[in-house]
Amino acid sequence: MAGINDAVSTVQHVGELAGVAAFALSGGLVAVRHRLDIVGVLLLAVATALGGGVIRDLIIGNNPPVAFTNMQYLGTAVAAGAVICVWRPPVRLTRWPLDVTDAVGLGLFAVTGTVVAHQAGLNAPGAALLGMTTAIGGGVIRDVLTGQIPSVLRPQQHLYAIPALLCATVVTLLLRYTDYQPWMGLACAVIATALRLASLGLGWHGPEPWYVRRDRKAGLLDE
Amino acid sequence: MAGINDAVSTVQHVGELAGVAAFALSGGLVAVRHRLDIVGVLLLAVATALGGGVIRDLIIGNNPPVAFTNMQYLGTAVAAGAVICVWRPPVRLTRWPLDVTDAVGLGLFAVTGTVVAHQAGLNAPGAALLGMTTAIGGGVIRDVLTGQIPSVLRPQQHLYAIPALLCATVVTLLLRYTDYQPWMGLACAVIATALRLASLGLGWHGPEPWYVRRDRKAGLLDE
Amino acid sequence: MAGINDAVSTVQHVGELAGVAAFALSGGLVAVRHRLDIVGVLLLAVATALGGGVIRDLIIGNNPPVAFTNMQYLGTAVAAGAVICVWRPPVRLTRWPLDVTDAVGLGLFAVTGTVVAHQAGLNAPGAALLGMTTAIGGGVIRDVLTGQIPSVLRPQQHLYAIPALLCATVVTLLLRYTDYQPWMGLACAVIATALRLASLGLGWHGPEPWYVRRDRKAGLLDE
Repeated sequence: MAGINDAVSTVQHVGELAGVAAFALSGGLVAVRHRLDIVGVLLLAVATALGGGVIRDLIIGNNPPVAFTNMQYLGTAVAAGAVICVWRPPVRLTRWPLDVTDAVGLGLFAVTGTVVAHQAGLNAPGAALLGMTTAIGGGVIRDVLTGQIPSVLRPQQHLYAIPALLCATVVTLLLRYTDYQPWMGLACAVIATALRLASLGLGWHGPEPWYVRRDRKAGLLDE
Repeated sequence: MAGINDAVSTVQHVGELAGVAAFALSGGLVAVRHRLDIVGVLLLAVATALGGGVIRDLIIGNNPPVAFTNMQYLGTAVAAGAVICVWRPPVRLTRWPLDVTDAVGLGLFAVTGTVVAHQAGLNAPGAALLGMTTAIGGGVIRDVLTGQIPSVLRPQQHLYAIPALLCATVVTLLLRYTDYQPWMGLACAVIATALRLASLGLGWHGPEPWYVRRDRKAGLLDE
Repeated sequence: MAGINDAVSTVQHVGELAGVAAFALSGGLVAVRHRLDIVGVLLLAVATALGGGVIRDLIIGNNPPVAFTNMQYLGTAVAAGAVICVWRPPVRLTRWPLDVTDAVGLGLFAVTGTVVAHQAGLNAPGAALLGMTTAIGGGVIRDVLTGQIPSVLRPQQHLYAIPALLCATVVTLLLRYTDYQPWMGLACAVIATALRLASLGLGWHGPEPWYVRRDRKAGLLDE
């Protein structure tokens, strides 16, 4: 049991660091798009990367959050932000790298957030909700801080919260009803990332309420 | 004493669920107005409905917040959001239902937030402040997430924070100096809701600083 | 040791109150600029003044935050907001008072936030990060609530986060490696405030990533 827990927490830890790096890159890319200076790039990278985990830790009462006590997270976020400061993402890639890094962070944070919530004793729906919140929290903070409506709440967007929620739900069920192994979480993260990217590439949207869809088809929406 | 506390917590619990439903409906209505898909409707309903209570619980150190442990709240919020997904509020009602549901949530959350804060040992001004914060918190989250200035901070708005603060102040005084009965809280919530709706119907505004009022009368404001 | 701690906490307490007043004035000035009524002025003053400290207390797990238990903070914020309600800042000063009060709050909160974080057991980088967060948190809340991009994340801004982070870093090093005296913190706050104001007066900017600077010089930015 201790062995499994150790392995889980190692994989979880590495996964969190990878998610932190992915979200930090996405925050840095948004900052560059907004023409922020180096301080702004680093601040937005750190806020995006650590924001979801800080929300998670505040909610389960893990004070102070690991982002403030384990310097690996802060160091990873700052390093990823620094990469964006010195490396110009090729122009043809300015949209895709942000989508990919954000999707990778989404999947990894959904898994680690759910695992942490489960270990803190939350029940299955609570752990899934907190896993999704952890996953989308960093991006929401990034968007609110740069004056944008969070992408999860923009009309006619591609799937974002759904992959995170599905992933968190599967992980919480695996944790509760199976002999959870770290590779299961990794597989869930990969699937969530793939689902997000497939949604972007194939133009999948979430369903609209039937009356909005009807009005849209009838040309009644004033957009 | 136990009997009273049981009754208080029962009424408080039912009041919280009603407030959650009211705020979830308001969040869902705003989401539909923004043409969000079903995921966006549910997310905004849940964030609006549970946001105020999560803030309250984080502040008094009630970790994890009840929104993550008692599934009645999440279930109520999701159910209310689902109603908006399948039921088209009549066009002539699109403004009023939002105002009414928001006002009902405002009153109920002001009362339950104050009671919870009082039970957590906050002094009278602290409990009143937290009660008001709980009441207006969900709406602030809803507005910030949809890229709007929170309605409590828009110029020439009708009374919003004042009913919540008055209600929370009366409740904290009742808790402290009387043999508090659940019906007292319910009466306070009804009065706060009525005050909010009367403000909307009768065009009551909060007073402006005298020099802004003078400039407005003199036509010096560049609006 | 007790004597030093008493002195530290007294100076820290007075510094916090001064920072609260400064940020409350800045919040009130922004509210007047947005033509808010008296309720809006007081709400924004209180949110700006107490927001940074509430974030700090939530992160270190100091529940409920002192803003809700020690009424001196709330009273100071309300009083400062009330000043703005009755006193018209001269038109020629409408920009400068906001800059100055905000800079004073920035310096004082960076110091007190770092001291509180250190006392809560955070390591040096964590304490510096939390000190900076405390210092810039109130302003970020003020800007987000009024629908603006936080000034720390606007392009081509003057130094804001850097003075706070430098100040917090120096304070955390002093706390860790010297016989910390209250006047040291005060000196750091004054230097941070002066650095912020000098940046405004002398037009200092943070450095941009080299490729943004190159594109700007080449006229390739579409601004």
